[in-house]
Amino acid sequence: MKKQQFVVIGLGRFGSSLALELMDLGYEVLGIDHNEEIVNELSNRLTHAVVADTTEEEVLKSLGVRNFDCGIVAMGSDIQRSILTAILLKDLGIKTVVAKAISVLHGRALERLGVDRVIFPERDMGIRVAHQLVNPNLLDFIELSKEYSIVEMIVPACLESKNIGELNPRVRFGCSIVAIHKKSGIIVAPTAMDQLITGDIMVIIGSNKNIEDFKAVINED
Amino acid sequence: MKKQQFVVIGLGRFGSSLALELMDLGYEVLGIDHNEEIVNELSNRLTHAVVADTTEEEVLKSLGVRNFDCGIVAMGSDIQRSILTAILLKDLGIKTVVAKAISVLHGRALERLGVDRVIFPERDMGIRVAHQLVNPNLLDFIELSKEYSIVEMIVPACLESKNIGELNPRVRFGCSIVAIHKKSGIIVAPTAMDQLITGDIMVIIGSNKNIEDFKAVINED
Amino acid sequence: MKKQQFVVIGLGRFGSSLALELMDLGYEVLGIDHNEEIVNELSNRLTHAVVADTTEEEVLKSLGVRNFDCGIVAMGSDIQRSILTAILLKDLGIKTVVAKAISVLHGRALERLGVDRVIFPERDMGIRVAHQLVNPNLLDFIELSKEYSIVEMIVPACLESKNIGELNPRVRFGCSIVAIHKKSGIIVAPTAMDQLITGDIMVIIGSNKNIEDFKAVINED
Amino acid sequence: MKKQQFVVIGLGRFGSSLALELMDLGYEVLGIDHNEEIVNELSNRLTHAVVADTTEEEVLKSLGVRNFDCGIVAMGSDIQRSILTAILLKDLGIKTVVAKAISVLHGRALERLGVDRVIFPERDMGIRVAHQLVNPNLLDFIELSKEYSIVEMIVPACLESKNIGELNPRVRFGCSIVAIHKKSGIIVAPTAMDQLITGDIMVIIGSNKNIEDFKAVINED
Amino acid sequence: MKKQQFVVIGLGRFGSSLALELMDLGYEVLGIDHNEEIVNELSNRLTHAVVADTTEEEVLKSLGVRNFDCGIVAMGSDIQRSILTAILLKDLGIKTVVAKAISVLHGRALERLGVDRVIFPERDMGIRVAHQLVNPNLLDFIELSKEYSIVEMIVPACLESKNIGELNPRVRFGCSIVAIHKKSGIIVAPTAMDQLITGDIMVIIGSNKNIEDFKAVINED
Amino acid sequence: MKKQQFVVIGLGRFGSSLALELMDLGYEVLGIDHNEEIVNELSNRLTHAVVADTTEEEVLKSLGVRNFDCGIVAMGSDIQRSILTAILLKDLGIKTVVAKAISVLHGRALERLGVDRVIFPERDMGIRVAHQLVNPNLLDFIELSKEYSIVEMIVPACLESKNIGELNPRVRFGCSIVAIHKKSGIIVAPTAMDQLITGDIMVIIGSNKNIEDFKAVINED
Amino acid sequence: MKKQQFVVIGLGRFGSSLALELMDLGYEVLGIDHNEEIVNELSNRLTHAVVADTTEEEVLKSLGVRNFDCGIVAMGSDIQRSILTAILLKDLGIKTVVAKAISVLHGRALERLGVDRVIFPERDMGIRVAHQLVNPNLLDFIELSKEYSIVEMIVPACLESKNIGELNPRVRFGCSIVAIHKKSGIIVAPTAMDQLITGDIMVIIGSNKNIEDFKAVINED
Amino acid sequence: MKKQQFVVIGLGRFGSSLALELMDLGYEVLGIDHNEEIVNELSNRLTHAVVADTTEEEVLKSLGVRNFDCGIVAMGSDIQRSILTAILLKDLGIKTVVAKAISVLHGRALERLGVDRVIFPERDMGIRVAHQLVNPNLLDFIELSKEYSIVEMIVPACLESKNIGELNPRVRFGCSIVAIHKKSGIIVAPTAMDQLITGDIMVIIGSNKNIEDFKAVINED
Repeated sequence: MKKQQFVVIGLGRFGSSLALELMDLGYEVLGIDHNEEIVNELSNRLTHAVVADTTEEEVLKSLGVRNFDCGIVAMGSDIQRSILTAILLKDLGIKTVVAKAISVLHGRALERLGVDRVIFPERDMGIRVAHQLVNPNLLDFIELSKEYSIVEMIVPACLESKNIGELNPRVRFGCSIVAIHKKSGIIVAPTAMDQLITGDIMVIIGSNKNIEDFKAVINED
Repeated sequence: MKKQQFVVIGLGRFGSSLALELMDLGYEVLGIDHNEEIVNELSNRLTHAVVADTTEEEVLKSLGVRNFDCGIVAMGSDIQRSILTAILLKDLGIKTVVAKAISVLHGRALERLGVDRVIFPERDMGIRVAHQLVNPNLLDFIELSKEYSIVEMIVPACLESKNIGELNPRVRFGCSIVAIHKKSGIIVAPTAMDQLITGDIMVIIGSNKNIEDFKAVINED
Repeated sequence: MKKQQFVVIGLGRFGSSLALELMDLGYEVLGIDHNEEIVNELSNRLTHAVVADTTEEEVLKSLGVRNFDCGIVAMGSDIQRSILTAILLKDLGIKTVVAKAISVLHGRALERLGVDRVIFPERDMGIRVAHQLVNPNLLDFIELSKEYSIVEMIVPACLESKNIGELNPRVRFGCSIVAIHKKSGIIVAPTAMDQLITGDIMVIIGSNKNIEDFKAVINED
Repeated sequence: MKKQQFVVIGLGRFGSSLALELMDLGYEVLGIDHNEEIVNELSNRLTHAVVADTTEEEVLKSLGVRNFDCGIVAMGSDIQRSILTAILLKDLGIKTVVAKAISVLHGRALERLGVDRVIFPERDMGIRVAHQLVNPNLLDFIELSKEYSIVEMIVPACLESKNIGELNPRVRFGCSIVAIHKKSGIIVAPTAMDQLITGDIMVIIGSNKNIEDFKAVINED
Repeated sequence: MKKQQFVVIGLGRFGSSLALELMDLGYEVLGIDHNEEIVNELSNRLTHAVVADTTEEEVLKSLGVRNFDCGIVAMGSDIQRSILTAILLKDLGIKTVVAKAISVLHGRALERLGVDRVIFPERDMGIRVAHQLVNPNLLDFIELSKEYSIVEMIVPACLESKNIGELNPRVRFGCSIVAIHKKSGIIVAPTAMDQLITGDIMVIIGSNKNIEDFKAVINED
Repeated sequence: MKKQQFVVIGLGRFGSSLALELMDLGYEVLGIDHNEEIVNELSNRLTHAVVADTTEEEVLKSLGVRNFDCGIVAMGSDIQRSILTAILLKDLGIKTVVAKAISVLHGRALERLGVDRVIFPERDMGIRVAHQLVNPNLLDFIELSKEYSIVEMIVPACLESKNIGELNPRVRFGCSIVAIHKKSGIIVAPTAMDQLITGDIMVIIGSNKNIEDFKAVINED
Repeated sequence: MKKQQFVVIGLGRFGSSLALELMDLGYEVLGIDHNEEIVNELSNRLTHAVVADTTEEEVLKSLGVRNFDCGIVAMGSDIQRSILTAILLKDLGIKTVVAKAISVLHGRALERLGVDRVIFPERDMGIRVAHQLVNPNLLDFIELSKEYSIVEMIVPACLESKNIGELNPRVRFGCSIVAIHKKSGIIVAPTAMDQLITGDIMVIIGSNKNIEDFKAVINED
Repeated sequence: MKKQQFVVIGLGRFGSSLALELMDLGYEVLGIDHNEEIVNELSNRLTHAVVADTTEEEVLKSLGVRNFDCGIVAMGSDIQRSILTAILLKDLGIKTVVAKAISVLHGRALERLGVDRVIFPERDMGIRVAHQLVNPNLLDFIELSKEYSIVEMIVPACLESKNIGELNPRVRFGCSIVAIHKKSGIIVAPTAMDQLITGDIMVIIGSNKNIEDFKAVINED
């Protein structure tokens, strides 16, 4: 299967990070920005990087943008340019168009224009960081539903040397430890014998309420 | 245990999202920005919101900032203001100071000045989105280590009605399904009998390589 | 039948002319602009005129915009504001939304967003004036189709005192004079006896080619 | 007869539309603007296009502007440049000078300086659109006098399959149908036997009052 | 005879000097400028001084400008405002309208619009100063024609104690001394007996060539 | 005697007019301005014209400014540049330095710094024009002293065909006609027989009061 | 003796530091700046602080500036304002006028205008710091003449516990230690018995050459 | 011993003065500024001078900045650039980093980041000048401690021809004259016989109080 090719338009902090990560993941990336300095800085790190005005249909055509599988509209804050570029990408027949929005209304416009996925990086990151701040041991998390989550937590000192059988979270709190990340490696689906060491990272699944209860007890101990 | 109190300085897209999420999570938040319009807009949605120049020590004192447990320096792009504010927060004795950085050098400065945690929201979000783009079925993921991940994926059509015993991912690919999110609810630690339906969401744990193999086979089928 | 109510957003030269003509035609018009000076100047000449930011949904709601029958988005040159306002008007449920576009791509965006009619005033007026310049006697015209037109022309000196029977345009050129505008009044469907006087205005219908032939002969005489 | 040659000064939305339409109509057009980008974009679509400061007499002379039959001063909004250019065109002996005005006072200045025709595109287009908005079936119209008009209207559903004899507008409303535009072609001076089909376009002549009565009855039916 | 009343529009260096001199000469002066600071500074030194936009006809009417005998348009460098104001003053029926021009083309526009007298203060003053620089003894002069002048010169040391009979300029150089300005007063039409003292000022009339000869001989002596 | 050489610094309306008049009078002129466009425009009309920053001593030296007889500092409105340039010209040893001032305080600074002559062109021209406005027949004038003037006036209609003997201004008004400028030429020191024709220009000398009386009687007649 | 009163004009970093030190020294200070914010900040720390334009003679008079003994013109970088203010202070009769210059030419202008003392703070401080950088032990110094200095130096480790008799700088290097600043206090004119301790500060007088020799030997040891 | 090498970043008034003085003292100096004009002006007067952005680590490396002994961060007023440059200099391992601060908070940030010495040139110079202003005879001074100073003073007229024995300052006032600077040279450690002449400069050491008493008596005399 031929690898997807990406065109990233707007190479600010978000766009350049995304483009470079795609390169790291082994994909081809065409980066476009109207700022020459930014393009020069990235020209050696992307497959191609060009200075162009992406609100000109002819420009996009001459760059062969229509041959890309996925276009990401990642302009910093210029809503007009974002919207006009998104229309052109859709009209050129790019299969997947993803666009960054900076306000609810901007997002709504992008959706109406047929953009396949609208993302709000700053808003989403704000939410992620809020969760981490209120749970200092929390490293990362996935919201499975409004009620269920998977959370990645540092094992606190109060659990030092306890094994999972003792802790018995499924019975006591209704949530399971699905993995433990120890210095020596990852233990998937740990057994009752596996022991927790302060500083290990444990991955817990459960309802938010149950996870909260579990954390409260831990902190209490 | 008394709940933590937060002061968020800089109420742009990232800062306001973070502040509002902290409110949703039930914490008290003081929001500060030097832009009056932004403050007015948020004044009913945060515990307090004030217009202030946070590079003036007297101003921070008169706002009682020293009594907060955690300060978040979330200025958009004004490195000078970010750095000077961070110093003052540390000097006022706030226990935890978190700051957003917009460049590697900015981040280094913040760390040197004693900021407890430096975050790069646009860069991190760029990385997250890159992963999701190359895995269209991928909804979310946690990197447990350089080699292991937990991923949340949509069940593709080719797995319709297969049960986990048939699929047998642990044996065939070395990765486990730790949960299935069905319309009817979440099944934690599913058994061999549990059946996958197209559109269900499955949570998989394993090494990145094994997960890739699993996804490749799925897409191939 | 209750008269339609109009809200005109953007009170520049085009928008204000449109709004004032609607007032002259006996309709109620709410005019909105973000420029206070412009609003003040028109406040006595429109039913209502207010200063407002029409990209704020709450603002539009509080102005009762949803109760209007027709919204005209007539911003001068701010594409972003034009697009965001158009979305909000559609979402508020206004039956007919008309918007001025300043470029082809802007027009395309408006159409995609569901705007009912997109107009290009400067472009259309440029076309009208071009026709009048190449036909100095031409006062006005309607393009019935690509091939047929109705034109309003000044009677040139060479036709002085000729009656329509003599001129016989239907037989000689294949086009008809449907009206003559004389100082004394309009003659609709003039007969062969009706006489042309230099400076009268005649209204001719026919194919463009036939009208051209007619004009060529007149100028030749 | 040698074809007229036009020089269009100011190639904004109005000026470029006018210049391009003159080209379409088969005339030679010299376009001038002080913005290089605009000139480049049009250079292949006009006979000639140059960047020049038209308030410099020597510049206009060196461009041979005096040999043109008609000069159109179409500057967007720079009244000073518009006035000074208009003077120079008149002084160079161009037979017909047409200028766009953006305010009543600007128009008055142009007339005093001897400009042959002053046009107000935005104002006029605002008026045209107002008429069309209040008459949704109205496609176009000519004001023959303060009291008489020719209007081009879509045949509404209530007139389906009626022939003109039945409808008898001359007797019932005092206005005549001078043409019907059907899919199959234009019928000039239709007879009582000609039948109207919903969606046909009919061209009506009459006093404004009579046309209003006609439309009111139609909408009522 | 009632004294003339003046309205001076534009109170920069030229306009304010003119307005204040008119006050000194005993006339009533209304000063208008759009800069509030300038108006405040002059408000006690002119009959009236107001801040107003003189391109608004209604504003000029409400100030009673039409009742003034003479209007001076003395704007610094805003050609557009100068031209539009000049038109309005003429249209309001002011008998004499004088306007300052800053370029030849600006001057031509003002003349075409019916301005009664166009002045070029900087240009004229440049010319005056040039004459004075090349004739260090020259204080002032009037050009009677291209060939004849009256000049006001300091009596140089070489003429000390000579009387006019000795000097005999009419015979020797063809030019006459029409007045001598001595410390004790002015001698009009001096006689052959009147003596010149170094530092006296003499007023000479003659052809430019003769005056040059006279000066050359003086400097030579 | 070698002709004086002038350097004019600042080639705005005043400076360029002065420099060009000096050229016309046959002198060599070096023009300097920091605006390249202005220098280009004058480069063919002055002996030399250069773009330079005249506040740099080295620059002035390399231009050989010290060899000029007279330097004129004619900057439009940049007081700082005017003052610094004036100091450098004096320090370079230029014999005569003349400078334009735009305010009383600016003039005072220039005098303190040793500038030989300070001129206020706009102020002086304002005064001259004021005198001309209140005396519509006045063409030009020289103020000999606070009390005496020479004025150049158009002969009004009421003096048609009168000879100077009849008019007898010396006896009746105490002022003398020193010259009459007729179409046929200038009459210096006219006799009682010389006749005035409407439109002739007469040059009158006398006390201001006597000239006023004379004019009043003329206008009264 | 009545204490001197100072007016400091320009309250930037230099001016405000100067003004506050004068206050500390017990003098009355009027501070003036045209920036309201700066004035507000200092209003409680100076005798008086006002916002004013010091290039307006009337303003200075109304502030009673003429009654001050010494005026300091400390504007940051506005040469024009600095020069015009300096003239006015001198003309108001202030006995001592001190002004900060930012360039050699600026300084020259101030001197010509009669300013009593011109200072170049940044230049002088640059020089001071340069000396300290090349002599890391040097704390401060006074240049008595081109050849002699007094320097204040930290006693280096190599002199630990040596007494002045041993060190004998007068004989060995031709320079004297005039004071030693020990933790316990200052010893003026120390005797041969006084002992140096590392970290003491010694004040040395001598020719620059001799001091250099002394330092070289010290560092060498 | 190899001479120290300095890199001075920011070549404004302070930085360039410092760099030039280091050159005069015989050291090698690399000057860096982001303003090309400033660099050009100094390029012949420093060992090297380059235009560079010192917030780019790669740029500093390529300039070999790490090989310098001492870096001076002397930016005018750009706190952000100052801080980021300071971090990079420290991280490159430069032994001594000195930085100019423009506010207390800026200074605190620099110290936290490990800058070896923070200087406040304008503030310090303001303080120095204040002392000199209140002591018109004071030329320079060193503050040895809060209480002791060395001051350099002009000998006032009242001490004319007194010898030090007569004056006896050590006994009468508790302060010593450590040197007299006469036209003929410096007398270090003057004896009781050495005579003071008006205009000589004497260097006095003592407590501030004693020096004040001494000065008061002198002025009183």
